[in-house]
Amino acid sequence: MLKLFQSPDSCARAAHLALEEVGADYEAVQMSLSGGDQRRPEYLAINPKARVPALVTDKGILTETPAILTYIAQTHPDSPLRLPDDPFAFAEIQSFNLYLCATLHVAHAHKLRGSRWADDPAAIAEIRRKVPEAVASCFEMIETRLFRGPWVMGETFTICDPYLFVFAEWMEGDGVDPARFPKVLDHRTRMGKRPAVARVNASRVS
Amino acid sequence: MLKLFQSPDSCARAAHLALEEVGADYEAVQMSLSGGDQRRPEYLAINPKARVPALVTDKGILTETPAILTYIAQTHPDSPLRLPDDPFAFAEIQSFNLYLCATLHVAHAHKLRGSRWADDPAAIAEIRRKVPEAVASCFEMIETRLFRGPWVMGETFTICDPYLFVFAEWMEGDGVDPARFPKVLDHRTRMGKRPAVARVNASRVS
Repeated sequence: MLKLFQSPDSCARAAHLALEEVGADYEAVQMSLSGGDQRRPEYLAINPKARVPALVTDKGILTETPAILTYIAQTHPDSPLRLPDDPFAFAEIQSFNLYLCATLHVAHAHKLRGSRWADDPAAIAEIRRKVPEAVASCFEMIETRLFRGPWVMGETFTICDPYLFVFAEWMEGDGVDPARFPKVLDHRTRMGKRPAVARVNASRVS
Repeated sequence: MLKLFQSPDSCARAAHLALEEVGADYEAVQMSLSGGDQRRPEYLAINPKARVPALVTDKGILTETPAILTYIAQTHPDSPLRLPDDPFAFAEIQSFNLYLCATLHVAHAHKLRGSRWADDPAAIAEIRRKVPEAVASCFEMIETRLFRGPWVMGETFTICDPYLFVFAEWMEGDGVDPARFPKVLDHRTRMGKRPAVARVNASRVS
């Protein structure tokens, strides 16, 4: 059985949603990032990067959300998240998720993790100040160039959809007005009605 | 025929190396990032993100290095970069490349692209000051936890190897002493002797 180490307020929510979408046999372990669970020795033995998600499989442990999403999809080929066999179509999905992971998520992370990139409190405050602008520029790219509709990749629901949803849920917290991005907002609304989202939300330990 | 838009001093070098490793039929277009080639309208029509690499294929255009590396490998299954069929082994490769893309490359990018995350010149200078520490912590993770040897993934040469090589070449420029990371340094030395590297280096337009 798969075991997902996750936090509902982190990007690990995307992997959690994907596990529900495919009907996986799994257990979710909720971590408290504010409580420092990710830095405890027993978790560092699982993921030395001190981050979530980590997915424990019968072959070993996987980290990094886009790799985990792809793994979940590839090991559930009869599910709604089935990946295309064509290498180009597969690469387009990976490319979108990489933009989320390496650009949008990085822009978002400057809000609470400025200390990764600066020590001076004034610089960390300046980094935090610019987050709404940096995050909005990513959503501008998604809204105007990357998003196809009705789902991220067009007619087919893919692993891009739960992943985008997680960041779209964070817009207000990142100081971004969702009304500026109507396609993303409509996608967020439709995603929010999916049974998988309801099941993941209901599993949250408060 | 494939066409790769690249710059030899950017991470696009990894895709260029991969094309040489697999013996692809391709053309490389060298861009001047310092000259602003990536922001010209004709290039923005290819990649609106104003970055390299971009790979033009007969099916469309791909961006984001790990996606491009995977595409090159999947479309050259008889090459040294052939990917494993097993989803877990495939995911481990993706996971390593994601760490390079979303953590190490991001740490490196704070040297010259602090203006993405701050406007105040003092904050940008502080961000730049911390780059050696942030980049070194990534290499520490690679050296002690992620790198298997003799290649990144162990006995098999994969798309992780040319990608790591590019960042390893940047260590001195990022203020990191390669002697601190002997496995990475040895890998860099062995990578540097590969004919594919020599061919890519020889193609550079100065």
